[in-house]
Amino acid sequence: MLTTYKMADLQPKHFLWRMEGDVAVIQLDRPDRKNPLTFESYAELRDTFRDLVYADDVNAVVIASNEGNYCSGGDVHDIIGPLVSMDMKDLLKFTRMTGDLVKAMINCTKPIISAVDGISVGAGAIMAMASDLRIGTPDAKTAFLFTRVGLAGCDMGACAILPRIIGQGRAAELLYTGRSMSAEEGYTWGYFNSMSTSEALEADAIRMAQRITAGPNFAHGITKTQLNQEWNMGLDQAIEAEAQAQAICMQTKDFETAYKAFVAKEKPVFEGA
Amino acid sequence: MLTTYKMADLQPKHFLWRMEGDVAVIQLDRPDRKNPLTFESYAELRDTFRDLVYADDVNAVVIASNEGNYCSGGDVHDIIGPLVSMDMKDLLKFTRMTGDLVKAMINCTKPIISAVDGISVGAGAIMAMASDLRIGTPDAKTAFLFTRVGLAGCDMGACAILPRIIGQGRAAELLYTGRSMSAEEGYTWGYFNSMSTSEALEADAIRMAQRITAGPNFAHGITKTQLNQEWNMGLDQAIEAEAQAQAICMQTKDFETAYKAFVAKEKPVFEGA
Amino acid sequence: MLTTYKMADLQPKHFLWRMEGDVAVIQLDRPDRKNPLTFESYAELRDTFRDLVYADDVNAVVIASNEGNYCSGGDVHDIIGPLVSMDMKDLLKFTRMTGDLVKAMINCTKPIISAVDGISVGAGAIMAMASDLRIGTPDAKTAFLFTRVGLAGCDMGACAILPRIIGQGRAAELLYTGRSMSAEEGYTWGYFNSMSTSEALEADAIRMAQRITAGPNFAHGITKTQLNQEWNMGLDQAIEAEAQAQAICMQTKDFETAYKAFVAKEKPVFEGA
Repeated sequence: MLTTYKMADLQPKHFLWRMEGDVAVIQLDRPDRKNPLTFESYAELRDTFRDLVYADDVNAVVIASNEGNYCSGGDVHDIIGPLVSMDMKDLLKFTRMTGDLVKAMINCTKPIISAVDGISVGAGAIMAMASDLRIGTPDAKTAFLFTRVGLAGCDMGACAILPRIIGQGRAAELLYTGRSMSAEEGYTWGYFNSMSTSEALEADAIRMAQRITAGPNFAHGITKTQLNQEWNMGLDQAIEAEAQAQAICMQTKDFETAYKAFVAKEKPVFEGA
Repeated sequence: MLTTYKMADLQPKHFLWRMEGDVAVIQLDRPDRKNPLTFESYAELRDTFRDLVYADDVNAVVIASNEGNYCSGGDVHDIIGPLVSMDMKDLLKFTRMTGDLVKAMINCTKPIISAVDGISVGAGAIMAMASDLRIGTPDAKTAFLFTRVGLAGCDMGACAILPRIIGQGRAAELLYTGRSMSAEEGYTWGYFNSMSTSEALEADAIRMAQRITAGPNFAHGITKTQLNQEWNMGLDQAIEAEAQAQAICMQTKDFETAYKAFVAKEKPVFEGA
Repeated sequence: MLTTYKMADLQPKHFLWRMEGDVAVIQLDRPDRKNPLTFESYAELRDTFRDLVYADDVNAVVIASNEGNYCSGGDVHDIIGPLVSMDMKDLLKFTRMTGDLVKAMINCTKPIISAVDGISVGAGAIMAMASDLRIGTPDAKTAFLFTRVGLAGCDMGACAILPRIIGQGRAAELLYTGRSMSAEEGYTWGYFNSMSTSEALEADAIRMAQRITAGPNFAHGITKTQLNQEWNMGLDQAIEAEAQAQAICMQTKDFETAYKAFVAKEKPVFEGA
């Protein structure tokens, strides 16, 4: 029999983890430095999202802010310093590890909601961008600032993903200039799905996640898979792929449950299978 | 010699069909139940859009609302009930048929304008989404509510098409939550091309269709083909594809007609060839 | 040793060229006819953008307006007239040449900013669309009016590129109808990155270009390459492509420069290598 992971009791070393029902809440935990990433937290986040594919006690993830900031990106001292003197082999090992975090988030089969307050820059902006949904606050400052540290805007998938969220022209500007996208721009451009206050943000994100996980979680995983899988399919191929994917969902118990509840004029209780 | 279809006099059994000049107007016709789709209307719509490829008396299609609603999607009793007890072979037959409707709409070579009043949900939202243009009213309620019946958001191409219309983040929210997109959101996000009133909606859509069909209809068919064909081409490949497609159009009579009219300071009368 | 071009002193025959620091400013120069393109200016622009790949004294390009207009597209008398009587071989030669201008702009590895005042229609709208960034004025009138001369909307990449900038539904409307997009629509829809006045437009565009070229120009070229290269990659493939591309940038002097400046709390001075 297939074994499944239990992850609710996870005790990661390099970030905070707690459960709110079936929703895992992740927080980086160096609020004095606006929550930078380190080599260690990158790797542990990557491994955690990889394991989530097999977890059956976590149905969605909220990446929350911590003391007013989301994430300040790769730490200048801990990460950028060492990179400057690495050879190509190690540099590629590093950029692949960071890319693997995004791949793991995209392929984890659970919806991810980022709750973005304050600073969300560099790899921190990427983590929010690579989430399925984003809630912001008026204080959210999002900057894909790679260009300001002498690098290209193509970091961890930004040139592919950001244009599909906010449009090619707006994405190009943010990536060439490295300038901050204001919270208002983010909301108007469809980067943030909704806005909250710093006080209410985390609860709002958890509530949104729980509204989703009250639905058919197996099917949600298929939705996530297809949103990413069809990224560069032809239209006819995407439609055939959805015919297959949806036929699978029609054999779940949740589909029958919804139908019976509808007939009985009741609210369905989904089981995620 | 190539035969062409005449479709103006079509007498479909499962939906209404009439001509306004060279524009076909389609309406589902169960307004008491907000115009659901049935197995039969799905199949007949699919076949009609497939035939349109060869029709030379229909240059555009308006899918109109009927008594204040556009389409309530797959009928719960007529469709969802039977699906619950089907085996995989039949389920895939069904999901492929629904996908084939979208493929037929996309590949029919005539612009399709949806005039969306009231309810446009489930497969009803898909039909509007798969149209080339959409006009809404303040009462338009659009919901990709598959998740609410226990299914995934990937239905009939939604995970591929919706993100390209309104952006990846907004599409993800609608597909995960199944919530209604308000008319105002739809307009702001570029889902609706323009807004009308319930009273004026159908006439406005027909007028927009006729403004388009007064143009070069052969070339319009090429525009539609390329918009869909280039969906996942590389940029250089798309540009070469357009060089070929436009060169074809430059050998039409309509191109010469437009040039002569310009020189004579007259309004061109296009023939669609 | 690899030779590089010096292009600052270029003296093109069919358009204006001047340098503002390391930013080349291009203007079409037939303002009495709103700056149409001719066979000659098409070809010379294409060749210039092709050469820019190897130039090391030009880091960005501004395509500016001239006496209140950007570009009125292919000249009706000089271009459309001859096309009407060409055979397919020559027609394809022409459409490929126009497409090659867009390919050259896309592949030139330098950011291009269009400063759009007044008329920007037909191939003129395409040149602005194919730029990386666009600044408009309240008088900017943008029309992909190919349909009005009897042709399809698929010209020089429009069916591929325009939907990614403003969304599939809005692009479809502009391409089917050929109608003008107002300046306000252009800004709201993300076509224009910012708005200026007719008086300040050119200076604003040059300032934006110089802000970008004050950054790491080698890395900017990689950003441009990846924005276009990843157009139709799968997500996992795009992320790997960025891991490789960014690793290359991490071996540039500019990356080290930025780090050292950060540590010294100074402003980095980039060298573009």
